Amino acid sequence: MPDQSSPSLLFEVFALNQQVGQLLREALADGPLSPDRYAVYSAVFEDETITLTALAARLGMPLTTAAEHVRRLERLGHARRLPNPQDGRSFLLTLTAEGRRAHRAANTRFEQAHRAFVEALPIPVAAATEVLTALRLAAREATRAAPTQRLPK
Amino acid sequence: MPDQSSPSLLFEVFALNQQVGQLLREALADGPLSPDRYAVYSAVFEDETITLTALAARLGMPLTTAAEHVRRLERLGHARRLPNPQDGRSFLLTLTAEGRRAHRAANTRFEQAHRAFVEALPIPVAAATEVLTALRLAAREATRAAPTQRLPK
Repeated sequence: MPDQSSPSLLFEVFALNQQVGQLLREALADGPLSPDRYAVYSAVFEDETITLTALAARLGMPLTTAAEHVRRLERLGHARRLPNPQDGRSFLLTLTAEGRRAHRAANTRFEQAHRAFVEALPIPVAAATEVLTALRLAAREATRAAPTQRLPK
Repeated sequence: MPDQSSPSLLFEVFALNQQVGQLLREALADGPLSPDRYAVYSAVFEDETITLTALAARLGMPLTTAAEHVRRLERLGHARRLPNPQDGRSFLLTLTAEGRRAHRAANTRFEQAHRAFVEALPIPVAAATEVLTALRLAAREATRAAPTQRLPK
């Protein structure tokens, strides 16, 4: 059997996400966006305009999954494409007024949950955020390093 | 607009989980268990026997969600109930030989991904795990503190 302490790091990522999911599902229950969708809107909103590649990296998602989210936002009229002045072959995504409205409606509820969360946290927010970012970048490196899988298309 | 640094804590939880999900989906792709199911089997396996309440707390899930997982494991013949000597009204869950076999088959793949992850991590595993646990407990406290939602049954 492997070292007990070892797999518990990834296990804790799972359990933390479950618990935060529970917190946010309850907080956002009456709003227009689910927690997962709120995260996508937030990532676009924060940067005002963002490329698909940067969005996928920011969300920790494969490009294909991020592209599905983008198509959904476009279908809803919540986001639209702008030409990318840096690169004629790609585009920049931005929230429409409608998309910003949905984000704002969810944001009030989100902020309440966030405040309760931070109040209960015995460590500084900045230190915790740094650890989460270091973990995400390590997971990304490990994902890239993994031998290519024969996943069905 | 709220303080930029503030919502990014919960955002980082989301992005970290996405990235770890990507890592583990690829690692476990050819195995018998998806990453989410692997986490459930692991929680039962680690404690050998566990109550439904302890399992739900460990996984960061509502009791009802944990109970669905338990029913699924029982249906597959991967877990069974034992009487709880501490409390005649509850039961202890344990993996069957078949359940342990599925866990073990996924575990080899999981351990590979875990090693790559830890190698890429610039901070000590124990410190990172502690931060994740503190975050989970804070999220649990915030979930409990939230006003009861009128969620549909």
